[in-house]
Amino acid sequence: MKKFNTSKISGAEELLPEKQALFEQLKSKIDETYKKHGFLSVETPHLERTEILLAKAGGDTEKQIYKVVKTAETADESDQALRFDHTVPLARYVVEYESKLTFPFKVSQIGVDFRGERAQKGRFREFYQCDVDIIGRNNLPIAYDADVIATLLDTFSTFDLDTPILARINNRKILTGLLEAFNLEDKSKDIYSIIDHSEKVSPEKTKSSFIEIGLSEEDTNMLIDFINTNGQRSFVIDRLAKLNLTNQTFLDGLNELNKVMALLEAQNLQDYITADCKIVRGLDYYTGTVFEFILPEHKNIGSVCGGGRYENLTKHFSDQSFPGVGGSIGLTRLFYVLNENNLLKNQVDSLLEYAIIPITEAEYDYSNILASNLRDKGFKTTVVYSDKKLGDKITYAAKLAKNGIIIGDEEVKTNNLKVKNFLTGETTNLE
Amino acid sequence: MKKFNTSKISGAEELLPEKQALFEQLKSKIDETYKKHGFLSVETPHLERTEILLAKAGGDTEKQIYKVVKTAETADESDQALRFDHTVPLARYVVEYESKLTFPFKVSQIGVDFRGERAQKGRFREFYQCDVDIIGRNNLPIAYDADVIATLLDTFSTFDLDTPILARINNRKILTGLLEAFNLEDKSKDIYSIIDHSEKVSPEKTKSSFIEIGLSEEDTNMLIDFINTNGQRSFVIDRLAKLNLTNQTFLDGLNELNKVMALLEAQNLQDYITADCKIVRGLDYYTGTVFEFILPEHKNIGSVCGGGRYENLTKHFSDQSFPGVGGSIGLTRLFYVLNENNLLKNQVDSLLEYAIIPITEAEYDYSNILASNLRDKGFKTTVVYSDKKLGDKITYAAKLAKNGIIIGDEEVKTNNLKVKNFLTGETTNLE
Repeated sequence: MKKFNTSKISGAEELLPEKQALFEQLKSKIDETYKKHGFLSVETPHLERTEILLAKAGGDTEKQIYKVVKTAETADESDQALRFDHTVPLARYVVEYESKLTFPFKVSQIGVDFRGERAQKGRFREFYQCDVDIIGRNNLPIAYDADVIATLLDTFSTFDLDTPILARINNRKILTGLLEAFNLEDKSKDIYSIIDHSEKVSPEKTKSSFIEIGLSEEDTNMLIDFINTNGQRSFVIDRLAKLNLTNQTFLDGLNELNKVMALLEAQNLQDYITADCKIVRGLDYYTGTVFEFILPEHKNIGSVCGGGRYENLTKHFSDQSFPGVGGSIGLTRLFYVLNENNLLKNQVDSLLEYAIIPITEAEYDYSNILASNLRDKGFKTTVVYSDKKLGDKITYAAKLAKNGIIIGDEEVKTNNLKVKNFLTGETTNLE
Repeated sequence: MKKFNTSKISGAEELLPEKQALFEQLKSKIDETYKKHGFLSVETPHLERTEILLAKAGGDTEKQIYKVVKTAETADESDQALRFDHTVPLARYVVEYESKLTFPFKVSQIGVDFRGERAQKGRFREFYQCDVDIIGRNNLPIAYDADVIATLLDTFSTFDLDTPILARINNRKILTGLLEAFNLEDKSKDIYSIIDHSEKVSPEKTKSSFIEIGLSEEDTNMLIDFINTNGQRSFVIDRLAKLNLTNQTFLDGLNELNKVMALLEAQNLQDYITADCKIVRGLDYYTGTVFEFILPEHKNIGSVCGGGRYENLTKHFSDQSFPGVGGSIGLTRLFYVLNENNLLKNQVDSLLEYAIIPITEAEYDYSNILASNLRDKGFKTTVVYSDKKLGDKITYAAKLAKNGIIIGDEEVKTNNLKVKNFLTGETTNLE
């Protein structure tokens, strides 16, 4: 027989049933919380036309996209590839069904994306992303930015993590306006990039990077002061206001950040949010509010959720303007790091409630009816069909279920059923 | 601006939010029912090594499989392709984790598979399959065959379809033994193929097909009599027993069919099952019990679920023997045909329970707290942030939610809240 490598492919996750149950529990909690907050679920295909996925050229996308080879029977179709995020398919969806959707459109997408990146521990090539987005037509009030952050905070609260969560919030207009005010717009791309990487390098490295791109010592110090500004809303807003800048973009950003945080504070979320001028979330795309969630007691894990406000979701596909705000939980990575750091209490037991053990075939029918009744009451129940010894059957049942019920001819006659709790060893009567 | 085709790719499904909610409801019911029957959920990656997927050569697989192109950063990996079913990945999984699994292993898999078939109405290239399988090590009692069928029947019962469901059950050993007894084994492949197609062609065509492969008039008539044997267990078993065959395979098949159906009858499922000698389920793979579900009032729809017993799940990957029995619901196709035939009562309304409408920004905080309280009670709730006219906001709210609650300064002061039911027009006090 040919010998096959039966391990999963590199860069994908594959769990044993107990872990899978835990993973699905988190996924369900995300789904339920998104829906409870009024988001409507949408699912687009995993395969898209390549030209749609690459409409926005550049970046790593082109290097990491998995194209599929046409088959004999799909040869007439355009080139296709696997989606690498939910944003591009959502943009296509909004353009396609615009007349049938209600705006602002609160939409959630939970599904698998694919990126052919270099394999690395804790990085995945096929992974679940759980997105919420709110899409406006022509405009979208700033209060929706707080709506997205509140939804995601509520989602994390359902996970019952053994550690707190913190949303670091910023507004990109503040830095954009600051750079305009100091006549540094021409270096803005480099500056954004240095700030975006500043948490991965030493403060000295960040400083020397600013100098290297030609900033003066004074501007460098000003920027370092700026990006180290973080804390409570009032503290950060006051400190930035003291710069006394009149640049409108800067003032708009300050005003928006203030509003978003005030809306969250009024929902009693002040302990879970902080203003942080270091958050920029990549080089482009986001234009206003930006945020990322961290576990402050486990800074090594990095961001566990992120998102922000974008100018126009559909800019590559339509002349109409659909501004939006969204956020995403990378569930496969999150589940991986939570397990690695032992942060998931064993919230679910994958064990069934009951395993029913007929002693002989003569008790199969009775056992099946009993199982059906227990399932009707909502209990996960299985029946052990086997001609093995009773002891072997009980051993098997105890691996699968919390409780065992042995059915022999006596039980069938008397209907007097004993439940053995495999976890405690106790025996009680079935109620 | 370049003009893009923003429709979904051909052969994939993509739903508007209302239909998506209905689809997800069916998917949840399947998942819940499988779990209630003691199946443990497993999820394997969408991408597999191509050599794993093609281990069993032949058939349409090779023509329909979507291979992916390596990216710059995955160039060191083996060739990969998208899975076309859940069975091959499950076989790999069982071999890989055998020592960590408990056998019989009751496993469910709900996920998307890919087949690059010719595009056709109602046929999909990317589609949900919802599988249950029970895998034994070395052996698996016949009672598990009934377990799978009972689980799938229970699943369909949760759908609240406007039409009955019927499981047509057979056992391939019966036909195999019959062909042995009549010395027709050498033509068995052709005969299986003709029977498998017999429902798609006229009785005359089936008859002439038998003649064409060289069967005698007598053998042809015997086979046509045989495949037209169907009905209640006792009727079918009696009729087949009257053939007075001594072939052991035939008798084993009869005995197994009898047992499986008796186990189902004892669970009060007699109205949902029928024995049917025409069911063979393809040319190979299955070796004992075979079944398919139909909607007898909508025969045009064809099979909506099918499965059976197989000799060895892992035969291409391991020398060990893992006999199994399984079944699958093709959910994407099922949902499509149920909609086409108007068989889904509108079981879910995708509408939110509440839309809260603050009149001005001054009522945002109050509205957010109210929303949070309603969500804690389990209600799907959204808040309408907008500086549009109140009438416009109410129109928007009525498209999204069953009930609207308008919040002005009066409501904030008095806490006296009115709920407008958008469906009936009635107004009541919020409890």
